[in-house]
Amino acid sequence: VITVGIDLGCSEIKAIVLDRTGQVLATTRTPTSGSTADDGPSWLTTVRRLVNDLRQTVSNKNVLVGIAAPGLAAKDGLSIFNMPVRMEGVEGLIWSSVFESLLPVPVLNDAHAALLAEAVLGAAREKKHVVMLTLGTGVGGAILIDGELYQGAIGRAGHIGHMTLRSDFSRDIVGTPGSLEDLFGDHTVSARSHGRFATNQELVRAHEKGDGHATRIWMDSVRQLACGIASITNILDPELIVLGGGITKAGTTLFDPLKSFLHDVEWRPNGHEVEIVPALLGTWAGAIGAGYRAFPVDIQAELKRRNLCAAFVNSPGFAMSVEPG
Amino acid sequence: VITVGIDLGCSEIKAIVLDRTGQVLATTRTPTSGSTADDGPSWLTTVRRLVNDLRQTVSNKNVLVGIAAPGLAAKDGLSIFNMPVRMEGVEGLIWSSVFESLLPVPVLNDAHAALLAEAVLGAAREKKHVVMLTLGTGVGGAILIDGELYQGAIGRAGHIGHMTLRSDFSRDIVGTPGSLEDLFGDHTVSARSHGRFATNQELVRAHEKGDGHATRIWMDSVRQLACGIASITNILDPELIVLGGGITKAGTTLFDPLKSFLHDVEWRPNGHEVEIVPALLGTWAGAIGAGYRAFPVDIQAELKRRNLCAAFVNSPGFAMSVEPG
Repeated sequence: VITVGIDLGCSEIKAIVLDRTGQVLATTRTPTSGSTADDGPSWLTTVRRLVNDLRQTVSNKNVLVGIAAPGLAAKDGLSIFNMPVRMEGVEGLIWSSVFESLLPVPVLNDAHAALLAEAVLGAAREKKHVVMLTLGTGVGGAILIDGELYQGAIGRAGHIGHMTLRSDFSRDIVGTPGSLEDLFGDHTVSARSHGRFATNQELVRAHEKGDGHATRIWMDSVRQLACGIASITNILDPELIVLGGGITKAGTTLFDPLKSFLHDVEWRPNGHEVEIVPALLGTWAGAIGAGYRAFPVDIQAELKRRNLCAAFVNSPGFAMSVEPG
Repeated sequence: VITVGIDLGCSEIKAIVLDRTGQVLATTRTPTSGSTADDGPSWLTTVRRLVNDLRQTVSNKNVLVGIAAPGLAAKDGLSIFNMPVRMEGVEGLIWSSVFESLLPVPVLNDAHAALLAEAVLGAAREKKHVVMLTLGTGVGGAILIDGELYQGAIGRAGHIGHMTLRSDFSRDIVGTPGSLEDLFGDHTVSARSHGRFATNQELVRAHEKGDGHATRIWMDSVRQLACGIASITNILDPELIVLGGGITKAGTTLFDPLKSFLHDVEWRPNGHEVEIVPALLGTWAGAIGAGYRAFPVDIQAELKRRNLCAAFVNSPGFAMSVEPG
């Protein structure tokens, strides 16, 4: 059995081919075009082409497909039923019909897919209670309860970016006042720096060079993140917090001040301190999670049981094409 | 089989006797004394006396006992291992030794016990994903996942009062900046009203009489609560939110503005609105949950299955002695 996991992002579409032993057989990525052609949205044409190309690459027409996308997955796991971010045509699309598949094509929220991948092959393996935050344009998240992805009543669980940290600030894209997403995400860096920096990456670079203005903004962002993590710890009591997303490449420039702020704001009963680690699967986690979910359940269980993390991240397929993100 | 559920509060100790059909056979309550006698803390003497009295009342020496108390229950469920609020001698006390019981005496966090009771006999019955907030001196909480109480990695789960809503405000008892507990709980009403009101009850009474100062403070409190509920909804995606604690007696004075603020700040994908209801078991919920937990698991399952809520809240034992709380 071979699966293709697709991560349909707003700026880029990534696809990965996995075999049942957890080997990466191929990867490919391409920009998400926003235009709409006669035969439907152009991203749909792109996804179809990617899957066909990968089928030919691995000389196998019977690959199973799994999808990760922004938005809330429907209860039956066959479509995205709600997207706060606009991507025309995604809402309600039944993906099994796209690939003329007789088998269901599982559809997951992208942060849910990323945590699923980390739980099987990455930083969250062999853990029961885990919270993941993805720090990028926005702030996403996902929750593992008793070792299983927790999707909630309507597939919304884990939207940790949409928690209020400044109730006196304006509302974000889903209506949450002063949300973690608006206080930390890339999409507000320009506004928060009066146009001086466009992303957290630029902000961090300036901070590392000793720019005092950048340092003030960055330190305030990181303190907000610490308040969010401390709050989620009091609510969900995880054993592990996994941080993913591009900004984690800042390394100690992120983790050192974060740990210092957490020292102030984290409740540590009897000295108990929650472990915080970076994600291991990088920007490919969503695609990997989608591909994993496309396997039959017995193969999913087998992959999880075998604890393949080291083999996986050191495999040629991962090391050569995935890791450089 | 008969059980005694004890809710060991900082100001009051409540005890309730339940039989295996969910009938309330007896209740009793007494102030928690803070002093320490030669034979241990006086609350311990009081609890021992309460249990002995109740054993005699029901002419049964072989009652099983369950405990609800503030603080974090240990993983083995036999003691409270951490208490942010001081109650000398509770931390680490193995309750089975107190009652010289050969059987384990289950110990639960008090808000966890309250939600457990609401899940079996009250407002959360037959629901899978539920969040409960208890609004009193502080703000407590508990979480039901897939119909089961979720205690987390170290028993801390559900401490929703300790989520940041104003990261620019000072830290609360466990170190959380600008927490829901500090923004809503009774314990800060005096400070928030410059000494004019001591509790939310007084505040609400003045607001209802048209006191503009009281109205401003109350409306701001309720808006903070709405931000907290909207945040927890985005994180946990419950199907139901249950509000308990004394201040819910304010009825529409609480629920009407709360629903109005939620209309602004709650993310409602495709119009989906989370149901919010008051708790049904009042201030006795903690004791009921502790008594329920003391039953053998097969009787717990039977009680849950039978959906006794209406019979329970209308029973003479509940109506006469419990409900007036």
